[in-house]
Amino acid sequence: MKKPTVLVTGAGGFLGKYVSRYYSLKGYKVLGIGHGILSQKQRTEWGINSYLESDITLKNLCELSEKPEIIIHCAGTGSIGYSVEHPYDDFNKNVMTTAAVLEYMRTKSQSSVLVFPSSAAVYGNTHKCTPIEEQTQKNPISPYGVNKLLAEDLVRSFCRIYDLSASIIRFFSIYGPELKKQLLWDACLKITRGNFSFSGTGNEIRDWIYIDDAVCLIEKMGENATTQVPVVNGGTGHGISVTRVLSLLISQFKVDNKPDFTGEVRSGDPYCLIADITEAQSYGWYPRIPFDEGCNMYYSWFLKEAF
Amino acid sequence: MKKPTVLVTGAGGFLGKYVSRYYSLKGYKVLGIGHGILSQKQRTEWGINSYLESDITLKNLCELSEKPEIIIHCAGTGSIGYSVEHPYDDFNKNVMTTAAVLEYMRTKSQSSVLVFPSSAAVYGNTHKCTPIEEQTQKNPISPYGVNKLLAEDLVRSFCRIYDLSASIIRFFSIYGPELKKQLLWDACLKITRGNFSFSGTGNEIRDWIYIDDAVCLIEKMGENATTQVPVVNGGTGHGISVTRVLSLLISQFKVDNKPDFTGEVRSGDPYCLIADITEAQSYGWYPRIPFDEGCNMYYSWFLKEAF
Repeated sequence: MKKPTVLVTGAGGFLGKYVSRYYSLKGYKVLGIGHGILSQKQRTEWGINSYLESDITLKNLCELSEKPEIIIHCAGTGSIGYSVEHPYDDFNKNVMTTAAVLEYMRTKSQSSVLVFPSSAAVYGNTHKCTPIEEQTQKNPISPYGVNKLLAEDLVRSFCRIYDLSASIIRFFSIYGPELKKQLLWDACLKITRGNFSFSGTGNEIRDWIYIDDAVCLIEKMGENATTQVPVVNGGTGHGISVTRVLSLLISQFKVDNKPDFTGEVRSGDPYCLIADITEAQSYGWYPRIPFDEGCNMYYSWFLKEAF
Repeated sequence: MKKPTVLVTGAGGFLGKYVSRYYSLKGYKVLGIGHGILSQKQRTEWGINSYLESDITLKNLCELSEKPEIIIHCAGTGSIGYSVEHPYDDFNKNVMTTAAVLEYMRTKSQSSVLVFPSSAAVYGNTHKCTPIEEQTQKNPISPYGVNKLLAEDLVRSFCRIYDLSASIIRFFSIYGPELKKQLLWDACLKITRGNFSFSGTGNEIRDWIYIDDAVCLIEKMGENATTQVPVVNGGTGHGISVTRVLSLLISQFKVDNKPDFTGEVRSGDPYCLIADITEAQSYGWYPRIPFDEGCNMYYSWFLKEAF
């Protein structure tokens, strides 16, 4: 029997690598595309059968050797700060690539289903620090949040007009081994150097979802993609302050220091983001990895990676 | 004294040409850019001092010889039917070009003000056939409407995040001499050939705004562009049925025939679009040309053009 095929855009990125390996282990043939550089060893390690190192353009997508059953569109940016400095590049990487994927589906592969990993950044600042439901008003404050919402709108309109099937997951803070940016990575590097000073107030609240839980949710929403384009939050339903995250991480290093904060707030960064995950759970998915366990796995990986 | 400068994107198109000539007569130096081909004679005729025949990309915009005081972003598509067949091209022409213009402003010309001619297509089908206010819920049904709304969202977010100034005009049906597409043009060609059969039911309602009125509104909204990005409808406040439009036009040809309709509805086309123009009028603008007068001018131009 022919293996089913999955196309993973951004297959060289953090989420894309895990998604590739997951589907590969499930028996899928994995086609990857992205601008990340992956050696043959890495491709094998992450289960990527065929990898096209290139931008996600319509032309490049049309050169794929096979029409995939599933497309997981992991390509895109992942930094609010970068998007504030480079909104046009962020637009190109998030919105343009999504338009290309949708046009590829419309013209070449109508029976593919799409899973689009969006972001909690589409919500922007909420008034209360309580779990956010999917139908909450969207007020993205960063170009990253704006662009993810524009990309979502494109997915919805293509699906409505051309009968394509998709689902959208608004991920909160995905973390895990291999993530070499954002709070945990920066903090590990700092702590290693004996630096315990961090930007912000420490009171910022995020909902941290472990990479394996995120990938399981992607698989689940691939099975539930429709022309109606269901949208679910990808988080745990629990908020953790930056102070708590850093205290847990510092304790892994077995030192007594406490994190110190500059008090300066980063532009474009909402104060509190916690997912209401009722909707995601209604599909039979639930997060399995508590933060302290995930944080410990991250720390263990960092030790091997850094030294 | 140095002349003020206006940049007109899509300066070779219907709206762009009139905008160019208007600002030229007002004493502006007019820079044009677009993929339309304009002879030196045409450039002179339309008051375009310098014309770059090219796509509206960031790179091309950065090659402009001067930083304009005003940018009128007329580039884009104008056909709902085309957008349904070619949504990706429509996205590129409407959304990508807007992103490029905004990034050009952000990085090279922050003091320029932008006027973005959007479209009533962003509203989609409304429940009642009454004048539409700007704050009405947006439910675009065609890719063209979706893309114009995405472009508006980009304008708003760039202005909010980077303190740029703009205004948006949602034009209803702009018409006038030089327009060689859409209902009036198609109808003139058909009537000339003795064909009085038209698609649709004839009951579709549109709000027709004469090109000179549209251009005056653009100038007005250029003067009132802010970081808050005011949005106004560009119409007359009066709806006219397709049957009435065609009857008026046929009467110009001095024949007795009545239009005949196939009854088939075009995909993506809302049934009724009438502008509430209270907001536009609050800026001191009002439409001057009634439809029968504008229709007569169109007919006179068509006679000269076609024979």
